[in-house]
Amino acid sequence: MGGDFGPRSIVQASLACLSATPSLHLTLVGQPSLLEELIHGQSAADRARLTIVAASEVITMDEKPAQALRGKPDSSMRVALELLRDGKVQACVSAGNTGALMALSRFVLKTLPGIDRPAMVAAIPTQTGYCQLLDLGANVDCSAEHLLQFAVMGSVAAQTLGIARPRVALLNIGTEDIKGNQQVKLAATLLQAARGINYIGFIEGDGLYRGEADVVVCDGFVGNILLKSSEGLATMIAARIEALFKKNMASRAVGALALPLMKRLQADLAPARHNGASFLGLQGIVVKSHGSAGVQGFQSAIQRALIEIQENLPERLHGRLEELLS
Amino acid sequence: MGGDFGPRSIVQASLACLSATPSLHLTLVGQPSLLEELIHGQSAADRARLTIVAASEVITMDEKPAQALRGKPDSSMRVALELLRDGKVQACVSAGNTGALMALSRFVLKTLPGIDRPAMVAAIPTQTGYCQLLDLGANVDCSAEHLLQFAVMGSVAAQTLGIARPRVALLNIGTEDIKGNQQVKLAATLLQAARGINYIGFIEGDGLYRGEADVVVCDGFVGNILLKSSEGLATMIAARIEALFKKNMASRAVGALALPLMKRLQADLAPARHNGASFLGLQGIVVKSHGSAGVQGFQSAIQRALIEIQENLPERLHGRLEELLS
Repeated sequence: MGGDFGPRSIVQASLACLSATPSLHLTLVGQPSLLEELIHGQSAADRARLTIVAASEVITMDEKPAQALRGKPDSSMRVALELLRDGKVQACVSAGNTGALMALSRFVLKTLPGIDRPAMVAAIPTQTGYCQLLDLGANVDCSAEHLLQFAVMGSVAAQTLGIARPRVALLNIGTEDIKGNQQVKLAATLLQAARGINYIGFIEGDGLYRGEADVVVCDGFVGNILLKSSEGLATMIAARIEALFKKNMASRAVGALALPLMKRLQADLAPARHNGASFLGLQGIVVKSHGSAGVQGFQSAIQRALIEIQENLPERLHGRLEELLS
Repeated sequence: MGGDFGPRSIVQASLACLSATPSLHLTLVGQPSLLEELIHGQSAADRARLTIVAASEVITMDEKPAQALRGKPDSSMRVALELLRDGKVQACVSAGNTGALMALSRFVLKTLPGIDRPAMVAAIPTQTGYCQLLDLGANVDCSAEHLLQFAVMGSVAAQTLGIARPRVALLNIGTEDIKGNQQVKLAATLLQAARGINYIGFIEGDGLYRGEADVVVCDGFVGNILLKSSEGLATMIAARIEALFKKNMASRAVGALALPLMKRLQADLAPARHNGASFLGLQGIVVKSHGSAGVQGFQSAIQRALIEIQENLPERLHGRLEELLS
């Protein structure tokens, strides 16, 4: 029921995923009459793999997490997470209020043993591929131990995406040992001692985009600022280039070529908007699609959830943490 | 004597500024024989406005600030700052080691009354113009009081650049009151109470690039990450667009049009590299040009120093601080 545009684009994305993936079963949680209306016209074969579960309340985009937690026991978000907790579904995907989703996820699902706080991770495009950046805003103040936990979680997440030995780096304002704040310096010491993590040292903001690491770890304040400023910069650059093309290019063909290219680039550079961000460290798979993601964005978020189910991400994380902490 | 390419491009930029600005007098500090060689061929009229002051030592780009402070009493950087302290020059411009320049500036010049720590500020391009972002890395851990001081300094700096009533915002991961870490929340309270500051509230990373504020305040860790990741992203986008144009565009004319445009954009998006960053809060004007700035970048840094001299920036800052603290 969430997202900036309500359930319409979410249902549309769900139906597209159902058609594309014959093994997929989807459960839509929300107001049944509205959802029934939106899925009207679906083929009988696909409809058989689609369940609707009723939830009478909706958490709004500007609701405070504490309010969402206490005030709305029958919200679509909470009911979906309870289905996950009870083993009725294998993952939960939402385009709703991020803070509320995190608070409800922690409350309903609980964190994995050894994890104090779940983290949000998304894939950021780089000059050589992608890097997993975490935390993206779930945790404002982080200790060195939290950063270590994020590093472990990011490393496992990158492995599920096909990177055998992910290069893990700590985001910092320099690459020398003396640089950075206390948490970052201490986290470096912890990571150097951690077994089974391919820790490569500090990385700077430009090194991230050069593709020098597969996993980049930072606190949620820094990660959120980096992500949103990158989105803003990409949007600004796209607007400038568009304006320049409109001004300078006589040929319509050139404009026709350049504009889709810009749109693609912009989508690529707004990865959390485009592909969804995973919540890591919970006893269950939760993927957050951006509130303004649209149909394609929500499809990508469902795809990410499917990969995490196939790779059994929470179990693998649990195993890795037991190794590391034993 | 500093910078990634040594004094050659610095001298070249200096000579270009001398020719362009008849009222300008420049003092080059460093090894006299080398500098004399580099200025060889200068017209007598320009040469008359050029002084060379000898300094026997050079601080390297990877030297630690403490080392630079204690170990090299006759470095070109230190001698230049002492000329400034002693009133022999009105501003100091350097392309050398940033940490050493900051440490030496604090030691030689001292901070203004009411300022605990100087900050680094640079102009960041936005969708509507420029915003002054500070701190860019001089101060890793900042209290709310430090952020307040940065806001005052950034506001005065924006005024010297022609903005009568600069909109001042605090960088945060949301715009609601409950968002952010303790320092940011407390700084917001201080700024709401501060007289004579046009504080407009929190701003997010994307709001910065949308041009929602004239001055954006954050700690040096966050500011440095934002600046460097923006530089890295701009470089990556430029490389991608260049590659796509090379691949797709039959017309050479289009490539010829697009590539200079990309270069311009990249320079614009690496403002500290391009225009120089000011050290604010010192008893004197210090502008840092990026180590790899090149001739044009160093010229821009000299221009920024000239504006600060004309606008009497440290005096104005001093006055504003007295008002605010009285």
